[in-house]
Amino acid sequence: MEDNLPLILITNDDGITSPGIRTLVECVMHLGRVVVVAPDSPQSGMSHAVTFTKPLWLKTSDEFKDLNIEAYACSGTPADCVKLAKDQILHRTPDFCFSGINHGSNASVNILYSGTMSAATEAAIEGIPSIGFSLCDHSWEADFSASRPIITHLAENLVEHSLPEYTLLNVNIPKGTEVKGMKVCRQARAKWVERYDKRTDPYGRTYFWLTGEFVNLDSDGGTDEDYLAEGYASVVPVQFDLTSKEGTDFINKHWLWNEE
Amino acid sequence: MEDNLPLILITNDDGITSPGIRTLVECVMHLGRVVVVAPDSPQSGMSHAVTFTKPLWLKTSDEFKDLNIEAYACSGTPADCVKLAKDQILHRTPDFCFSGINHGSNASVNILYSGTMSAATEAAIEGIPSIGFSLCDHSWEADFSASRPIITHLAENLVEHSLPEYTLLNVNIPKGTEVKGMKVCRQARAKWVERYDKRTDPYGRTYFWLTGEFVNLDSDGGTDEDYLAEGYASVVPVQFDLTSKEGTDFINKHWLWNEE
Repeated sequence: MEDNLPLILITNDDGITSPGIRTLVECVMHLGRVVVVAPDSPQSGMSHAVTFTKPLWLKTSDEFKDLNIEAYACSGTPADCVKLAKDQILHRTPDFCFSGINHGSNASVNILYSGTMSAATEAAIEGIPSIGFSLCDHSWEADFSASRPIITHLAENLVEHSLPEYTLLNVNIPKGTEVKGMKVCRQARAKWVERYDKRTDPYGRTYFWLTGEFVNLDSDGGTDEDYLAEGYASVVPVQFDLTSKEGTDFINKHWLWNEE
Repeated sequence: MEDNLPLILITNDDGITSPGIRTLVECVMHLGRVVVVAPDSPQSGMSHAVTFTKPLWLKTSDEFKDLNIEAYACSGTPADCVKLAKDQILHRTPDFCFSGINHGSNASVNILYSGTMSAATEAAIEGIPSIGFSLCDHSWEADFSASRPIITHLAENLVEHSLPEYTLLNVNIPKGTEVKGMKVCRQARAKWVERYDKRTDPYGRTYFWLTGEFVNLDSDGGTDEDYLAEGYASVVPVQFDLTSKEGTDFINKHWLWNEE
């Protein structure tokens, strides 16, 4: 009987022990048969990295035993978790994939650096309807209470109405106990202004720690950053066909092409 | 006088000793003051990963001394190289960035996994006109002779005509000594069908090696994969605003949204 339920893969980048992934499991477990395959250690900032130059290890995990949820910890990246889950654990393509809840924002250009969003993208490449969820609070003790109804609402919509092929959602939820609602919007143009901390190690060698400040360069309104600042959860539909029409038109018009 | 020349940053993901990056330097060094900042070891498949949970090391390198080119080897990822170059080596935003030549294809969905393309994207986020170059040949002894005129042609166009803001180029060159020409085209819909090799380590633990087969799912024609198969170099203009109009229209129409 269980076999008629949708098969739901859950992963993240903060690792299988994070409070974020536990909250996500609790929010969607009523929607089908949930299987967790998540990194055995934090993988933040790993983006869409995949492991092929070294082997991967996989262990069954008791992390969600109290919820009666099957779980596996993987030595690889979030994208590895999705690939390995499909090929070696589930032995079929899951029906849906949820990634997160990330401890920290993946809005705007942060989607490019995010392991959480890359896991959801990896699922979308496989044709699996998927959503990545993030809370704009880096703390391990972050309060996910305001995230719960949003996640459940969006997950239920995904299971009920799905998404167009080759698209997924990047959902970010503002920090705090009150969220005004949800806004479907676009990715803000923004960037990190890096400042490396230059230090000297005990052996006299110079090393550098990355620090920086996030700067929103987008003043046209209606972006994920705008709505998050106003207290709304941002819902950005995302594609991974990166072809730029503007770039195509530009080089066809302005660049020199030999007749070939 | 040198100060009036464009400042050109060169990086890659195969590491500073790769034949590909040396070829790239040779192809573009007549266009300005070239500085190489590249990983000190191979970083293939690292995608847009950035290092902030541990420090980075940077060493001056003699790798390009014979060409009189300043070079640095970095312990981090390709994206780290671009960030660190700007903040700690160049102390200004370079005028152009070239990444590669990658030993292996970054066409189609491979752009998402690629460290080479993520370095070029990181530059584009900074507003730097940039191109990532890849040869569809994984061999360290790959023959780059047919790549040279293509790279020089495109690099000269970039310096002369630039690109629209927030766009870059993903250039892939077919294997072999003859290339028919260049085609501006779109990213193919394709994916890897994974097959993990399941093995047992000397201590009795099961481990997994990623292997797989690349499958082109796109039959509409005019893609990078199509032109590469026909013997052309593919030039895909790329953006990193991932917002999907199709996904936005779909969820606005079909999903349930509470009035908020």
